Amino acid sequence: MKIHFWSVGKAHESYVKEGTMLFTKRIAHYFPIQWKIIPSAKEDVKNAENIKMEEGKKILSLLSTDDILIALDENGKQFSSPQLAELIQKKANESTRNLIFLIGGAYGIHETVLNRSNIKWSLSHLVFPHQLVRLVLAEQIYRACTILRNEKYHHS
Amino acid sequence: MKIHFWSVGKAHESYVKEGTMLFTKRIAHYFPIQWKIIPSAKEDVKNAENIKMEEGKKILSLLSTDDILIALDENGKQFSSPQLAELIQKKANESTRNLIFLIGGAYGIHETVLNRSNIKWSLSHLVFPHQLVRLVLAEQIYRACTILRNEKYHHS
Repeated sequence: MKIHFWSVGKAHESYVKEGTMLFTKRIAHYFPIQWKIIPSAKEDVKNAENIKMEEGKKILSLLSTDDILIALDENGKQFSSPQLAELIQKKANESTRNLIFLIGGAYGIHETVLNRSNIKWSLSHLVFPHQLVRLVLAEQIYRACTILRNEKYHHS
Repeated sequence: MKIHFWSVGKAHESYVKEGTMLFTKRIAHYFPIQWKIIPSAKEDVKNAENIKMEEGKKILSLLSTDDILIALDENGKQFSSPQLAELIQKKANESTRNLIFLIGGAYGIHETVLNRSNIKWSLSHLVFPHQLVRLVLAEQIYRACTILRNEKYHHS
């Protein structure tokens, strides 16, 4: 199984780059892993709904039918770190080829993409900036890998 | 009201330092703000409970009676970002002098400190590394400040 992190927006900002790369490199010891940065819809697409729709079309065009898509969405389900680890294990056991974690743009993820997603996952009741979500996501997936291997990193 | 971030452990690690300092500087436009790094109990204090107790004594000795203590604890209550903003406003309105957010050490916060705390706050069902919590905390308190001033930063 290959893990993919897709994020709508710009390149990693300086304040999250080191940490995001650090945990991404660590994940690579467990699964092949790749980041894809999907450019935001242009500013001349005025309202939030249109921006999300434009971005949504792009995301849907990038997906293959058998990709498992986990959309990070504030209305999604919360998982504990061990539950997240179980989820990754389950997907690997189901012979998933591509497990994609998607971070939406500034206005979130369009309904059509949420409907296509296999799981909607909320990190927290708090809203985090999309750049910081990249770092949190990478750390959590790394943590999940260490839980699956019963390694020391995670204190529950 | 002055805001304090207390964290048990080492100096900010490189991967969170830039972001933590960035948001701390931004908070300073709204409230006086100060970090205090409280050294972890020595490694020769063997078990988790003893480590927490040692650290707890130190923390209690640093507190004044009228300090409002918000302990970051995974069994605490979760807040949305607007609820967090309300909480800060409420504490400011109550003429709080010192509002202290406490991040525990690797094994968490001792019961005696949790009992002394005014609020126990859980960021998420996920467990984050204590260094990353520093960055998330600083960003969230900055976000709360912008919500209180009705500024643009927070998209709900």
